[in-house]
Amino acid sequence: MRVLSGMRPTGKLHLGHYFGVIKNWLKLQDEHETLFMVADWHALTTGYKKVEEIPQNIEDMVVDWLSLGIDPQKSLLFQQSKVKEHAELFLLFSMITPKSWLEWNPTYKDTKYNLLRISDLELMFKGGVRDLVREFLAKLPYKVEDFEALEEFFLDALSDTLIQSVFEGYIERDLLRELNVSKRDFYDTDTYGFLGYPVLQAVDILIYKANAVPVGEDQLPHIELSREISRRFNNLYGETFPEPQAMLTETPKLPGIDGRKMSKSYNNAIYFADTEEELRQKVMRFFTDPKKLRRGDPGRPEICPVFFYHKIFTEQERVQEIERDCTAGKLGCVDCKKLMFEGLNGFLRPVREKRQEILEDRKRVWEILGVGSERASLMAKDTMEEVRERIRVG
Amino acid sequence: MRVLSGMRPTGKLHLGHYFGVIKNWLKLQDEHETLFMVADWHALTTGYKKVEEIPQNIEDMVVDWLSLGIDPQKSLLFQQSKVKEHAELFLLFSMITPKSWLEWNPTYKDTKYNLLRISDLELMFKGGVRDLVREFLAKLPYKVEDFEALEEFFLDALSDTLIQSVFEGYIERDLLRELNVSKRDFYDTDTYGFLGYPVLQAVDILIYKANAVPVGEDQLPHIELSREISRRFNNLYGETFPEPQAMLTETPKLPGIDGRKMSKSYNNAIYFADTEEELRQKVMRFFTDPKKLRRGDPGRPEICPVFFYHKIFTEQERVQEIERDCTAGKLGCVDCKKLMFEGLNGFLRPVREKRQEILEDRKRVWEILGVGSERASLMAKDTMEEVRERIRVG
Repeated sequence: MRVLSGMRPTGKLHLGHYFGVIKNWLKLQDEHETLFMVADWHALTTGYKKVEEIPQNIEDMVVDWLSLGIDPQKSLLFQQSKVKEHAELFLLFSMITPKSWLEWNPTYKDTKYNLLRISDLELMFKGGVRDLVREFLAKLPYKVEDFEALEEFFLDALSDTLIQSVFEGYIERDLLRELNVSKRDFYDTDTYGFLGYPVLQAVDILIYKANAVPVGEDQLPHIELSREISRRFNNLYGETFPEPQAMLTETPKLPGIDGRKMSKSYNNAIYFADTEEELRQKVMRFFTDPKKLRRGDPGRPEICPVFFYHKIFTEQERVQEIERDCTAGKLGCVDCKKLMFEGLNGFLRPVREKRQEILEDRKRVWEILGVGSERASLMAKDTMEEVRERIRVG
Repeated sequence: MRVLSGMRPTGKLHLGHYFGVIKNWLKLQDEHETLFMVADWHALTTGYKKVEEIPQNIEDMVVDWLSLGIDPQKSLLFQQSKVKEHAELFLLFSMITPKSWLEWNPTYKDTKYNLLRISDLELMFKGGVRDLVREFLAKLPYKVEDFEALEEFFLDALSDTLIQSVFEGYIERDLLRELNVSKRDFYDTDTYGFLGYPVLQAVDILIYKANAVPVGEDQLPHIELSREISRRFNNLYGETFPEPQAMLTETPKLPGIDGRKMSKSYNNAIYFADTEEELRQKVMRFFTDPKKLRRGDPGRPEICPVFFYHKIFTEQERVQEIERDCTAGKLGCVDCKKLMFEGLNGFLRPVREKRQEILEDRKRVWEILGVGSERASLMAKDTMEEVRERIRVG
């Protein structure tokens, strides 16, 4: 089985990336043919204004892939933008993909509104005009065949139109000041390429005829779209592509040092690039049970981020002891953190050492990507020859 | 000055193509550096279901280009899909082009509704709901800043939503039967690539840093979009592309043999591939003034398609004579057509002979395109090196 996966080059990886993605990749590379892609063209869908940092981000990310054990002898590592055939197939898939497949993809609107931090606006408008819409539709001088479906359809369309009306300045102009977004933000976010993101993703998978793609639950609609594009191409031009399967992967949410989900943007992450000293300081700054103020207070391990880490990084017999002592008020948070540091550092030390080794020959990272991208190109070229034969163009 | 123009490969050319496009190209190739492109990827935007015919259409079209005097020693003739760099720049431009630039482009909706033959529907719905929309907006529980603009904006959005509701079967289901279009037709027409057509057109122009593009009035919004994309790229990443100018070209509407505009789809066209005998028969079938039933009746040259042709193809001193004799009822339509045939055939004979010559070595046509496409690739590669340097990806 051929498995493809990719990551946008966001720079140095943190522990959250390991548990969410890399740990699974390590397992996959031992069991299947694996292709791991640096999705640098994808980075442009939302990051086309911050391109300066892309090359360094690629290097930092791949250094961490290698440090964590992703092995170029087992897996094909490559850089999307070096395989130009992706762009050609993107153009061709564009031509056969109905626009509505993309617009009605639930993640499209969600992501757009999240990026603009206006997710509440849609709900507000839907609630605010539901009765008016019903009244409007009841007076419609046309024969209605399905009132309920029509109502939902109009509510969706109208809430979109209202949101755009805000950005255009036709209604509630103050709202934008409150939300601190501008008309420009809206149109700069909602680009043509941003809408076409799932088409490019379908290309990434299908150009290598990958059979499976590891994904989290939220990515399922995208894989379904890849399958639909594959079927549509095959129907129009003859059997060419497989229908890739989703390998549903659990993506446990690792807490950062403030207890929230670990994320670069929250500034709460533990990086593989952190030195031992940086790690120690981060561990000591970890949030704990806010009700446990001093050693004698009983703690609640089940809500404590430090204990979450103990469960992963500390020997199992010690974990039960820690839980008991914390609950009994016998273990203070400082000591508890010191113990946790030992376990966590034990896991990170060899990664850090490997990382140091790799950093001594950074050029090697680019060589690995270069060779991998050439091998990927050969595979993509084979597919494109077949595609051009079928579509009679190119 | 570098001038770029292109044609979709629709097959054999007719007289309308000559007067609308090629005649202008012949002038341009003597005065400027010219690139003439076979826009085969563009053919997919509306023709992705009929790809079988594309290669033959390309050959037929280029045979006619050459027969009419387009000269590969003066002009660079190339095939879009052979210059893969177009696809890469399309992907990159996609990322920076706001979707609304494309959706609000007037030709997008017009072309879509024309293809579906439902242009009247939009007007009908706008008329039908205008009062309801006004009422709806008056009750809106939000602060309205610009009622007039809001009303126009909602009318546009709502008529679109109503059209989609018809296709979804939520209202007026019978309408689709009457119009003889299906839900499938709608979504098959409105693809992601169809929306992105002007982005691909911007690529065609900018990848060669062309300074000017000959266009008809209806294409002006597309050129404006190319200029906007050029400006946006330059603003984001540094001065790279010129702002191409539109060379507004008159495109006189040549009547076909039935008096309507000459068009392949009306089956009223005179092709350069027609034999002398086919031409003679078509000329004899030409529509004339319907009130002139026999030789003695006075005719009205100003409304007669045959006289339109005399003005172009017959010696000027004869034309005045013909006009006088027709009006006076001294010249019958059969004789008039025979005269017109002489002039028209005099124009077409050398083209036909050149055509025959070219057809004897069809491979030569593909060689010309092959060499041209390689030369075009070199130019495109130079631009893309610069682009990749600036955008830090690829």
